[in-house]
Amino acid sequence: MGKSPEVVVDPSPFRDLLGMRIGKLQPGRAELELDISPTLMNFVGRLHGGVVATLIDMAGTLAGYCLPDSDETRSSVTLSLTVGFTGTATSGKVRAVGLKRGGGRKIYNSTVDVFDENDTLIATGQGTYRYT
Amino acid sequence: MGKSPEVVVDPSPFRDLLGMRIGKLQPGRAELELDISPTLMNFVGRLHGGVVATLIDMAGTLAGYCLPDSDETRSSVTLSLTVGFTGTATSGKVRAVGLKRGGGRKIYNSTVDVFDENDTLIATGQGTYRYT
Amino acid sequence: MGKSPEVVVDPSPFRDLLGMRIGKLQPGRAELELDISPTLMNFVGRLHGGVVATLIDMAGTLAGYCLPDSDETRSSVTLSLTVGFTGTATSGKVRAVGLKRGGGRKIYNSTVDVFDENDTLIATGQGTYRYT
Amino acid sequence: MGKSPEVVVDPSPFRDLLGMRIGKLQPGRAELELDISPTLMNFVGRLHGGVVATLIDMAGTLAGYCLPDSDETRSSVTLSLTVGFTGTATSGKVRAVGLKRGGGRKIYNSTVDVFDENDTLIATGQGTYRYT
Repeated sequence: MGKSPEVVVDPSPFRDLLGMRIGKLQPGRAELELDISPTLMNFVGRLHGGVVATLIDMAGTLAGYCLPDSDETRSSVTLSLTVGFTGTATSGKVRAVGLKRGGGRKIYNSTVDVFDENDTLIATGQGTYRYT
Repeated sequence: MGKSPEVVVDPSPFRDLLGMRIGKLQPGRAELELDISPTLMNFVGRLHGGVVATLIDMAGTLAGYCLPDSDETRSSVTLSLTVGFTGTATSGKVRAVGLKRGGGRKIYNSTVDVFDENDTLIATGQGTYRYT
Repeated sequence: MGKSPEVVVDPSPFRDLLGMRIGKLQPGRAELELDISPTLMNFVGRLHGGVVATLIDMAGTLAGYCLPDSDETRSSVTLSLTVGFTGTATSGKVRAVGLKRGGGRKIYNSTVDVFDENDTLIATGQGTYRYT
Repeated sequence: MGKSPEVVVDPSPFRDLLGMRIGKLQPGRAELELDISPTLMNFVGRLHGGVVATLIDMAGTLAGYCLPDSDETRSSVTLSLTVGFTGTATSGKVRAVGLKRGGGRKIYNSTVDVFDENDTLIATGQGTYRYT
């Protein structure tokens, strides 16, 4: 059942630039994490909303990457993305948990929550994706 | 009328990391641009959706930065952000144009279009912001 | 702890037009339900997406209506709303469950799931609201 | 070029319940209008946000209905929808203008503005649609 972190995900230069680490990947679920560093800050010294949006996009995408009852993986592109900001983070780790919530053979939807290192929600979002 | 590019905007480390340049800022309108570089790519060699989301967030924010009939500027935080992807870009410049579409003393809304260097729309989004 | 369904909610003509019933209201949580009727259909005989969007808006709003540790209630207006459609419904009941996910004294965020009568998710959305 | 209002659109019970009228339909553009009536109000006597969301959904859908250089029309389903509220309306007509902003053979994106009868923007939104 489920996939372990050994699932191979294609390298992504932008993911590396932001220092995102892929955590546990399972069919329908993906975890990512990131250490807040000075380069990821906005003008008031908080984690930039664009970093949070990127985490949501990637966790939502990867929630559809592993397929159930199979070792197969599938890549996808983002059709639409939404982010609601509920807080901010200034230091430590942030963690995104993406859940695939529905979809068919070609299109799927995910919701994603982003937490600071005290497990306080700092953003919640959703995406619609198309398998390539 | 309008503000020139000499309007001072606070430095933002993440904006610098992505190489975003602030173009013309006017009351109700903001332009940003960015050169696509290898570090901004996703796993298939296209501009990462997170970069596009960041452009939309920033252009939408800055569309509310200069106030009409005044030299005053106001900073804001993002409450919510949406992105619809209509295309992709692999090289050259991308340009975001943000328009403030409504709002009051505390809250405002912007819509933003992102174009590749042939002026083809690659994404369109909207944001809701709160002045700080 | 929690509030019971006896919480008084102001009458809403559009809610009545759609036949929405307010279920259990608690601090941070709201349930609504609706019987699918012929007038709520789209051109292919399925529940119209606008009805689903309305359910999401109202459940997200009401998730912030009861305040914790208090009998006080607070009304709010919607700043932004998003809906991702994961399925459709053609008959029976639909049910929306809204959760307040964060926010402060003035602004709050909710996420909402909408289920058909077999508890299959047909849509998921989120909203940003401002207390009036 | 363009299509006239004589373009035939399938009947929709929910559109009728809300009293929406389809205005000019052209390839890439759709107009809808609606008279505000007491049944469409929220608890404070303003047009309900769900009505506005429905207008945006329908105008965005119909912006993709007429095809360029053809008399053909194509129906579609909504994948995702977003709404940003910039104002309210209490009486008179409201009008939604939807523009198809991009897309391919299967998926397309629209942005929609909603105006009160003084042409003040009351909401702006976007949708992602899939042709059926």
